[in-house]
Amino acid sequence: MRPSIYLFGDSITEESFSYGGWGSSLANHFARTADLVLRGYSGYNTRWALKVIEKVFPATAEGGGAPLAVTVFFGANDACLSDRCSAFQHVPLDEYKQNLHAIVAFFKKRWPSAHILLITPPPIDEDARLLHPYVENLSGLPERTNEAAGSYAKQCLAIAAECGISAIDLWTKMQQFPGWQKAYLRDGLHLSENGNKVVFGEVIGQLKEEGVSLETLSPDLPLISEINPDDPLKSFDN
Amino acid sequence: MRPSIYLFGDSITEESFSYGGWGSSLANHFARTADLVLRGYSGYNTRWALKVIEKVFPATAEGGGAPLAVTVFFGANDACLSDRCSAFQHVPLDEYKQNLHAIVAFFKKRWPSAHILLITPPPIDEDARLLHPYVENLSGLPERTNEAAGSYAKQCLAIAAECGISAIDLWTKMQQFPGWQKAYLRDGLHLSENGNKVVFGEVIGQLKEEGVSLETLSPDLPLISEINPDDPLKSFDN
Repeated sequence: MRPSIYLFGDSITEESFSYGGWGSSLANHFARTADLVLRGYSGYNTRWALKVIEKVFPATAEGGGAPLAVTVFFGANDACLSDRCSAFQHVPLDEYKQNLHAIVAFFKKRWPSAHILLITPPPIDEDARLLHPYVENLSGLPERTNEAAGSYAKQCLAIAAECGISAIDLWTKMQQFPGWQKAYLRDGLHLSENGNKVVFGEVIGQLKEEGVSLETLSPDLPLISEINPDDPLKSFDN
Repeated sequence: MRPSIYLFGDSITEESFSYGGWGSSLANHFARTADLVLRGYSGYNTRWALKVIEKVFPATAEGGGAPLAVTVFFGANDACLSDRCSAFQHVPLDEYKQNLHAIVAFFKKRWPSAHILLITPPPIDEDARLLHPYVENLSGLPERTNEAAGSYAKQCLAIAAECGISAIDLWTKMQQFPGWQKAYLRDGLHLSENGNKVVFGEVIGQLKEEGVSLETLSPDLPLISEINPDDPLKSFDN
């Protein structure tokens, strides 16, 4: 009865319900109108995402239940450099492009009515990455660079254009703010509280542009402000 | 494929995905193992909840999809005094008892395997309520009293015992902490950040006692820590 919004991505999605996270902010925003469904998988790249997508989004028996929207937020792990300490997560740019195309095609086929919203990887603060490696890193070189993340971000935008869907250019957006490195990221990669606010604001804004907002969605049941104090039960007659 | 935990209640549930809320903390805790589904309805009492319960939890066509657990968190509005400014939300104690019994019976019938977890209303800080009335209050008297909330809390515990299910005695638990009025409540009724932490901790603890925890639930897909860097795709073969 209440529609859903799926959040599909890597750790930046998986941890989006942590303190002040963009996922919980969306859930709070749509508290009476839509369910936020978390499908975040730490460390995953588009290659692995594509491998598991049928399991993550099983076909329902009745074929119904199309979500309102799906956010697709991959690329930060694909962009790990192939000759650095997180190389096992790296996916070449060409394959990233193919994989993201296939992911979009999957959702378009499964739920033609759903709004698909791509989010580019965030920019990378390389200095901070040296302090927070996922695996031991004695090389003195970060496993990700901002330049590489930018290449994947640009490819993500190109794919959105090719597929006729929208994208949030987080990589560019965040870097417009002086001090983005510490303001928006907590370890050079994952979002700070303010970084979470940026993503929340961008997602809400894009959904609204596509007609998914509190103005267009109806609460499933009367709001307290709509209930007549003199005859409350009348509100529930329909 | 991934099981659910439903949160059914009034405004203290509806706003549980706000900043640091107990709902978002649960969603974050179970990020890879269970979906938290928000069904909070600001201002609702057990009378209205019972009126809408079939709409809130429609029978699924295939009859499947039983949630792991359901939290039932009503009583704060039922306990509004019948002769004060929020009287339209008041439900007499006897009817509250019948209604809560009926709500529990509904869930037991619909999903016999689900853990049903009652939560009592929180204690009331009457001074703060005078500063934060929901409707205009010129009487100088709070619309809720701590004593009345306590009566509903005791009834809630009695119902849990009668139904053989568990309950969290939030009313008593919170008052064990000196300064609970400001520490756990932000307006004499709704939860502060620390109050949200109390509810999160209690729910997690009770679920764990009943066998619902990260130790017993399995992630649907491999964790990054389980993926062999030398052959990542092998992890997805099953």
